[in-house]
Amino acid sequence: MSFRPVLSSVQNPQVKQLCRLRTGSQRRKHGLFIIDGAMEILKAVEAGIGIQQVFSTTALNWLPKPMQDRLQLVSLEVMSKIAYGERSDQVLALARTPELSLENIPFSRNGFYLVLDQTEKPGNLGACLRTASACGVDAVILTSPICEIFNPNAIRASRGAIFTLPLAVSHREELTLLLEQQQIPCWLARVDGSKSLWQCKLDTGCAIVFGNEAHGLGPEWQGADSFRIPMATTTDSLNLSISVAVTLYETLRQRIG
Amino acid sequence: MSFRPVLSSVQNPQVKQLCRLRTGSQRRKHGLFIIDGAMEILKAVEAGIGIQQVFSTTALNWLPKPMQDRLQLVSLEVMSKIAYGERSDQVLALARTPELSLENIPFSRNGFYLVLDQTEKPGNLGACLRTASACGVDAVILTSPICEIFNPNAIRASRGAIFTLPLAVSHREELTLLLEQQQIPCWLARVDGSKSLWQCKLDTGCAIVFGNEAHGLGPEWQGADSFRIPMATTTDSLNLSISVAVTLYETLRQRIG
Repeated sequence: MSFRPVLSSVQNPQVKQLCRLRTGSQRRKHGLFIIDGAMEILKAVEAGIGIQQVFSTTALNWLPKPMQDRLQLVSLEVMSKIAYGERSDQVLALARTPELSLENIPFSRNGFYLVLDQTEKPGNLGACLRTASACGVDAVILTSPICEIFNPNAIRASRGAIFTLPLAVSHREELTLLLEQQQIPCWLARVDGSKSLWQCKLDTGCAIVFGNEAHGLGPEWQGADSFRIPMATTTDSLNLSISVAVTLYETLRQRIG
Repeated sequence: MSFRPVLSSVQNPQVKQLCRLRTGSQRRKHGLFIIDGAMEILKAVEAGIGIQQVFSTTALNWLPKPMQDRLQLVSLEVMSKIAYGERSDQVLALARTPELSLENIPFSRNGFYLVLDQTEKPGNLGACLRTASACGVDAVILTSPICEIFNPNAIRASRGAIFTLPLAVSHREELTLLLEQQQIPCWLARVDGSKSLWQCKLDTGCAIVFGNEAHGLGPEWQGADSFRIPMATTTDSLNLSISVAVTLYETLRQRIG
């Protein structure tokens, strides 16, 4: 194994850049983001995310060969400076924010799609992606997302599904036109939806749309059936990631159960 | 309205006590806990939780009459000292930790019960309780819980369901004996469960058991059918609160859907 210099100065420009990239505005400005954790980095590599450099306190046997050249060893002091929160993996990667174009999504008439409109909390986004991956959803489309997609909390809550799941960012008009062209029916999740989730026929291709955590789907979402998730009382409510999970699993049950 | 003295000294013994009660060990030692937020306090009052005092920066019209005598007005400075996290409700209550005895749970043969074994994260516990309430679960039994029940994060994630839902703490042996006596069948959630969730007959009385977030249910849970939640790939997994939600909603579908 060749000699590798260890980056040990917290004053190093790269270290300073990584620290700056802990704020969302800097990530947006530079089109870069940070991936924390070995499992998450591995999934990003497999998904072809443009990883510029990997920072670790130790050699990484699990890192694929072509990536080994991009490994930068750092001191424990530097790692504690650049690491996020309480993660103890001692490894992170600097990556280019990918384009999430709708054109890259291979829509098909029998596909199973999740649409999240104006999602606000990165943790909710990540949790929805993790469940969508477990359910075998074909793609997730984010219309006018409020939260930053590749936020550390979204990556973490997704368990890396944010990299492996086909994902696109779009607008309502663009998406609904495309779904119409593809003859993929839409279902709108609303607290006052006209049908109960269990009355919906979800065993063919469909796109299921969920609104913002606080406000739900706005009146501009029209021309499609709405459904509600049954509740024991009118004062109860469900978290977005829970509503999505219950709905995706009912869809999966009807498709393959 | 009568004159109410405002507590404005951060050196006041009551203020110091409230600050100490932000640590779990102090809460356990004194058998007291704190409820943050108006909606949560209201649900606790309705559920008969022993509230000793309510602290607020302003008068509270929504607080039931008998509780008005227990309202202590505090200055903004004191509130910022005693408030938890980023909550901006500007109101909290000091309450006695209730007994959560199994004897208080009215078991019936056709009941619908959720059992959480060795749950570790308060946020998960709270999220499970919120969903259990929305699903009309008759009671939740916590066997050998690792996390503190009335932790602020559990209360918050439950949206107050922690107070309104029948809740008991027990041990596996005690609970399984009682369920046997009541002829309530048990279902054990395991990643390698013998049946898929959708193959389980859940439309009669049942108790559904979920294990620890990291380790699942141990081998000591025996003598009952196990089930798994179907996944698209073997590398995917689900968060505990998501697994619970998917399972409870499938049960509800079979019971009333």
